[in-house]
Amino acid sequence: MSAQSPSRVNAIEWRNNRLYLLDQRILPHEQVWIECTSAADTAIAIRDMVVRGAPAIGITAAYGYALEALRGGDMTETFRVLAASRPTAVNLFWALERMATLGTTDAASLVAEAIRIHEEDIAANLAMGNHGASVMPEGVRIYTHCNTGALATGGHGTALGVIRSAWNDGKVEQVYAGETRPWLQGARLTAWELQQDNITASLVCDGAAAQLFRQGKADWVIVGADRITANGDVANKIGTYSLAVLARHHGMKFMVAAPLSTFDLSLSSGDQIPIEQRPMSEVTSIKGIQIAPHEFPAINPSFDVTPAELIDVIATEAGLIHNPSKETVAALFARARAEGRQA
Amino acid sequence: MSAQSPSRVNAIEWRNNRLYLLDQRILPHEQVWIECTSAADTAIAIRDMVVRGAPAIGITAAYGYALEALRGGDMTETFRVLAASRPTAVNLFWALERMATLGTTDAASLVAEAIRIHEEDIAANLAMGNHGASVMPEGVRIYTHCNTGALATGGHGTALGVIRSAWNDGKVEQVYAGETRPWLQGARLTAWELQQDNITASLVCDGAAAQLFRQGKADWVIVGADRITANGDVANKIGTYSLAVLARHHGMKFMVAAPLSTFDLSLSSGDQIPIEQRPMSEVTSIKGIQIAPHEFPAINPSFDVTPAELIDVIATEAGLIHNPSKETVAALFARARAEGRQA
Repeated sequence: MSAQSPSRVNAIEWRNNRLYLLDQRILPHEQVWIECTSAADTAIAIRDMVVRGAPAIGITAAYGYALEALRGGDMTETFRVLAASRPTAVNLFWALERMATLGTTDAASLVAEAIRIHEEDIAANLAMGNHGASVMPEGVRIYTHCNTGALATGGHGTALGVIRSAWNDGKVEQVYAGETRPWLQGARLTAWELQQDNITASLVCDGAAAQLFRQGKADWVIVGADRITANGDVANKIGTYSLAVLARHHGMKFMVAAPLSTFDLSLSSGDQIPIEQRPMSEVTSIKGIQIAPHEFPAINPSFDVTPAELIDVIATEAGLIHNPSKETVAALFARARAEGRQA
Repeated sequence: MSAQSPSRVNAIEWRNNRLYLLDQRILPHEQVWIECTSAADTAIAIRDMVVRGAPAIGITAAYGYALEALRGGDMTETFRVLAASRPTAVNLFWALERMATLGTTDAASLVAEAIRIHEEDIAANLAMGNHGASVMPEGVRIYTHCNTGALATGGHGTALGVIRSAWNDGKVEQVYAGETRPWLQGARLTAWELQQDNITASLVCDGAAAQLFRQGKADWVIVGADRITANGDVANKIGTYSLAVLARHHGMKFMVAAPLSTFDLSLSSGDQIPIEQRPMSEVTSIKGIQIAPHEFPAINPSFDVTPAELIDVIATEAGLIHNPSKETVAALFARARAEGRQA
């Protein structure tokens, strides 16, 4: 797959009927690949965040499903185990449904479908990147959150894909990467990807974004999404909603970049999205070092919900949704289906 | 001093003409005291954040000045060395001015003055705590930032002093401590103080505050201050301004608690406050562990400025300033001076 990725970064590889995942928990200082040979292996890798990022989770789950077909496993149980690995990113369920809907246990067909999902994700990212970049002004300063790059997707990235495309167009003056506590995906992963691609960028603590905005040092906030509901509400990494409020307060623009597979049209609004609560220890300790007093309680929601009215535009592979709402989301999907997209 | 502190926590002790500072860089897991015997020792301890918190820095600098008098040092040079230790907290300069204004090199007089500054700070905190707590409703849920407790002051605390007083009045249902990257004073210090005093509290990543506010889980944000200008603008720990915008967006109340010594009436507004920029490594590594890629740039302002219009009330030892502005700040100072306070 890597030859097809326009970025130097690649985190999911399928070779010789085995799945290899770059362990994102220990990046950027160590680059260790984890081999998965079963759906159970794959589910554990998703749960433990060897791989993360909604599109990457979907691709990984599809490969996990194919792996189990190669072993002649119970595909109903396989679906269940993979679907239970993480609750918020809808791409996971979308990819599994797409695999199951093939209605076959033929391993070769399922492997081919997983590869197709992976290739389509890269193509979608490139298209989304171009759509998103088209509305960036010259000299734009962009603030982003979490990791939405090649590591979080099949390649290129969603929000970071838009940034890469805009950078390649020569439009970007400066990128700010929010560090994204508690997992520090911004500091560990986005910074690493930006460095690999030589994009001018600085790291910022999440609490410091507001002052940057007040000083007029950023023009756009661009983030990814884990699930988007029919009205345009967006569940994404915790801290996203804060940035949306701050961007609006400072007269900045706010973009969400996500493939059509991130939309969950079965939910009418964001308050219906299940929000994963992760262990307190992810807040009270960092890299195994205890920070807070032992047994001090912590609140650790992995995601928050940003209401559509704070979002200026959603970039997808099928085009842009300006002023997201029930009507504008439905219009994009109608157009995408008319164009023959799987949406 | 500890007997006079109403909290179990104490971080600055003067014994046998020596200054002892609880090393706040390694709390809560180790409690190590550092002995200072000169102004140079003391300045290094302030610069390296053995002690932090605007009022505590002022008290420590006063003791450092007294220490040098005991050694028969050059008091002009002593003033300079201590004043250069950190740039933003005005209490540092206030305390040094007060020591120098005595116009003596008599060590016993200077020691007595430093002890007086320390005792007055504790008394101010208790008064401020009562004033601040008086406007808290029953069952209030309070979000706080950084550490503003006994560790940051002579004892009791400023914002955490208001919380302690309101807790003692039985008014507080829940406290949220923001972890406060990059130094994690909330996770390390405030959580520890809250645990020592058995106050019901949870730790929250800075980026997660907004979602808590949206869910209606907090009523007040209460923070301290490093410098307050004549118009009521407040410089405080980076992340404070973000909370002020978010509190206003969600219809919550925002309080700043600070002694009169934190006001700098020589500055007309917050944009005149020098903001300390600290080393990038404080963002790119945590507790000596590299997080971001090597040599990745980071932005690390230690403070931000919250404009007065986002602040509902400032609590001081001399009373409350509702809707802070040039006029309401001046009115409080006129009243305080009429009451004979050193303001």
